Amino acid sequence: MALTGKQLINGQWQTGEVGTFSAKDPSNGATLVPEYGIASLQQVDAAVAAAADAFAVYRQTSLAQRSAFLHACADEIMALGDALSEQVMAETGYPKGRAEGERARTCGQLHMFADYILGGEYLDPRIDTAMPDRQPIPRPDLRYVNQALGPVVVFGASNFPLAYSVAGGDTASALAAGCPVIVKGHPSHPGTGELVAQALFSAAQKTGMPAAVIQLLNDVGHEVGSALVQAPAIKAVGFTGSLKGGMALFNLANARPEPIPVFAEMGSINPVVMLPKALAQSAKELATGFVGSLTMGTGQFCVNPGLILAIDNADLTTFIDATAAALSAVPAGVMLNAGICSAYEQGASHFTDIAGVEEVGSGGNTEANSGSYAQAKLLTTDAATFLAQPALQEEVFGPLSLVVKCQNTQQIKQIINSLKGQLTGTLRAADDAELAEHLDLIDAFSQRVGRVVINGFPTGVEVCPAMVHGGPFPASTDSRFTSVGTAAIARFVRPVCYQAVPDGLLPAALQNANPLALTRVVNGNPTKDPIA
Amino acid sequence: MALTGKQLINGQWQTGEVGTFSAKDPSNGATLVPEYGIASLQQVDAAVAAAADAFAVYRQTSLAQRSAFLHACADEIMALGDALSEQVMAETGYPKGRAEGERARTCGQLHMFADYILGGEYLDPRIDTAMPDRQPIPRPDLRYVNQALGPVVVFGASNFPLAYSVAGGDTASALAAGCPVIVKGHPSHPGTGELVAQALFSAAQKTGMPAAVIQLLNDVGHEVGSALVQAPAIKAVGFTGSLKGGMALFNLANARPEPIPVFAEMGSINPVVMLPKALAQSAKELATGFVGSLTMGTGQFCVNPGLILAIDNADLTTFIDATAAALSAVPAGVMLNAGICSAYEQGASHFTDIAGVEEVGSGGNTEANSGSYAQAKLLTTDAATFLAQPALQEEVFGPLSLVVKCQNTQQIKQIINSLKGQLTGTLRAADDAELAEHLDLIDAFSQRVGRVVINGFPTGVEVCPAMVHGGPFPASTDSRFTSVGTAAIARFVRPVCYQAVPDGLLPAALQNANPLALTRVVNGNPTKDPIA
Repeated sequence: MALTGKQLINGQWQTGEVGTFSAKDPSNGATLVPEYGIASLQQVDAAVAAAADAFAVYRQTSLAQRSAFLHACADEIMALGDALSEQVMAETGYPKGRAEGERARTCGQLHMFADYILGGEYLDPRIDTAMPDRQPIPRPDLRYVNQALGPVVVFGASNFPLAYSVAGGDTASALAAGCPVIVKGHPSHPGTGELVAQALFSAAQKTGMPAAVIQLLNDVGHEVGSALVQAPAIKAVGFTGSLKGGMALFNLANARPEPIPVFAEMGSINPVVMLPKALAQSAKELATGFVGSLTMGTGQFCVNPGLILAIDNADLTTFIDATAAALSAVPAGVMLNAGICSAYEQGASHFTDIAGVEEVGSGGNTEANSGSYAQAKLLTTDAATFLAQPALQEEVFGPLSLVVKCQNTQQIKQIINSLKGQLTGTLRAADDAELAEHLDLIDAFSQRVGRVVINGFPTGVEVCPAMVHGGPFPASTDSRFTSVGTAAIARFVRPVCYQAVPDGLLPAALQNANPLALTRVVNGNPTKDPIA
Repeated sequence: MALTGKQLINGQWQTGEVGTFSAKDPSNGATLVPEYGIASLQQVDAAVAAAADAFAVYRQTSLAQRSAFLHACADEIMALGDALSEQVMAETGYPKGRAEGERARTCGQLHMFADYILGGEYLDPRIDTAMPDRQPIPRPDLRYVNQALGPVVVFGASNFPLAYSVAGGDTASALAAGCPVIVKGHPSHPGTGELVAQALFSAAQKTGMPAAVIQLLNDVGHEVGSALVQAPAIKAVGFTGSLKGGMALFNLANARPEPIPVFAEMGSINPVVMLPKALAQSAKELATGFVGSLTMGTGQFCVNPGLILAIDNADLTTFIDATAAALSAVPAGVMLNAGICSAYEQGASHFTDIAGVEEVGSGGNTEANSGSYAQAKLLTTDAATFLAQPALQEEVFGPLSLVVKCQNTQQIKQIINSLKGQLTGTLRAADDAELAEHLDLIDAFSQRVGRVVINGFPTGVEVCPAMVHGGPFPASTDSRFTSVGTAAIARFVRPVCYQAVPDGLLPAALQNANPLALTRVVNGNPTKDPIA
């Protein structure tokens, strides 16, 4: 399956109608082939209409059918073989290990949802049986079940060409819920997007899904994305990216005649508190771990540790020095594209332009220079400066971290309480006793973040039922949801109550015999029993 | 506990600082005593600050403590005795049966949530245990639980002085979740609001809750409500009322520096399809039931049946004639206030001004006239007119219904598919066989409504686990939630994931021993077992 530069619209590979663009290899600046077409607004309309038609069919598929489709998606992605990893590497500069690891995560997510929906838990079936003799008025039979929301638009993320793009977590959870997906591909990795769309389309064909269950459109600007979000037939949006991008979509969606939910995960600076005993015991080991987390993927993770909070003492100095030393040995890393790299440099300058912020360490240089190579940066400041400068809470996407030297743990707490919403908050402690002394910091984090991490680093987002990847604004647009883990499906379903519907006409999940063998809440109690 | 006209701010009864207003008895236009104070913006700020402080305490209360508080709220409301029903009757014109029925529903809701939270189901606890030896990387211990969102603002509804006001479903579900509530009382029934606030405050004191767990502010305009929705410490909003009011709050909340979720239930026209055999068999009985549903509470229900869809034939004529005859015997009913009554008359005129819309029946007149008495109205039109006039989809709040005469069931389906989101959709069939012939209509409704009703009328909203009171926009601002039933609590919680937190420092719901005896999803499987 060679690359064509075409887009997938209603099962047809269509040439873009308003010009073309090319991807670049950020490691050397080389322009990659082929050229990719940009969708016209007519093509957007065609895709939306096809998604609406596909929804009428796809929402009626059984859990088993959708499960088979999702498994097939993963299988077809694997069947792309090395061509996929090579495309990812060429378009992102990621090393092979990352490309293959992300592929494994992507397929793992698809398999996870394929298995998860079979249990039917996300349907949340509830049955309150009729009480015809109740006084003063009878109770009718009432049955509640979640159903798919409708066609969903997913925006591919720059930094996850597989795991948060065409077949990423947003797509997997929307497809699992019964929603067709239109992906607006990220223009940094269109070839990866086309290959994955080929795989998903092939899976749809092999498992009898409607052709438009998955579609892919490309654009280098905002026109296609804006038109998609504003199309009446679109019922929800999934996005991972910048605050600016996420808020633009959020505002567009809320200004529609019919507002629709947007789950935008918009990054975070992921504060890490280094408690005093932890630093006293192992400042150097912490520095090593920290540098690994900070520079992994050239810092291009939403959960990159961008803020270190610690008490200003000799142990912190040791930590800073060790971090600086370790950083200097890390060669400059390639970023996803030249624009991201230049935004990184600019963001770093904004920080160091602030009086009281000092650069104390930096990554090594590199011989290669494609305009996309970034050196990691370690900055320091004091708590007063940090508290006085809200600009220091902004995310600098890339391998930059700011160490804030605090007077005491009260000041650390004050800073946590001053933070905007975050994806994660991390505490490093020497032992459980030190943690127990700082329960108030765990509690403070629980009010500000989606995930509280003890003695780890925030990078590494496990895909599992208990994960929360989200958090209070601006980490996400709605802290009640997550974009990673099985709970991510809740973004794309809504409950419907069926009152006094004859058994044979009910959705299978609600029928008396419980043909899907689900756990259902019957008259308030969870049970797998059929209704007598 | 006499009425004082004061507002409840941080446990103190405070006189309003920017003027006063009075309630009127809509049945006779009499001005009621006392006068009620209007909150200043300083008082709004004080209430918000107190709610934030209360949240720090209240969110830490145990399920058992909150359960006791909610039961006490219901008990204290009942302890108000006849004074409460009399106040409701004076301020709303509702008969005693309605006042007492609504009180029973209100207390039932409080007891329901008191019992429901003890089961801990809404916490959705999930545990994925550590896999330290997993290849290529270990899995950390991850534990997920829902926690309270923060202080919530609830707007009292005009038409439910008890069940959707100070201690209504929004308040009950927010308090159950661990969120303090500030109620902006509806100015039509301030005395009812004050009495209920007295009861809830008394319950808070008796059960050791923070003073500001429940607060009440009054206003006759929009200033107090707007300030509350914009206050940074407020984290969610519950509203039941008009589309205009709900959208104003929704837009304000989304324009905040930190957007917050608004669940606004904004009414509906609640289509009812009368299938041909049903009309052939029992046109007159259907007319009797319909008139009861239409005129109940002078039509002042979100679920009032405002739209009848049926095939134009002799049986429909019989139904219309019988409805008109029955309506003429229903005396004009008192509406909640003169403004609502005049909006009703105006809305009805907007309909009858449209060419092709005919008034074919009307309720009787009344000798009393306070400016708040409304006659029920039955209008008819044809499908072409309805489809061509989107204005006929607007809700006329009150006892008005429009019968749309269709050529065939295809046209009925076309109309259903053209409707905006609705709280309910109802099908009346002669028998299961006739229903089975029209599965496509049930399916069409499932795409447009929150609740599908068979062979009933939409009025009568059961409070139970399986209820959905909400639906696609504009029935609500977010179809993924409901404002009635146990699932209503989901509006006010968000998940937090705890990674590698030592057992003793975890929230009780997540501790290994399962001290709350909850059903938890452990490594993907629901169980009450402790973690080994």
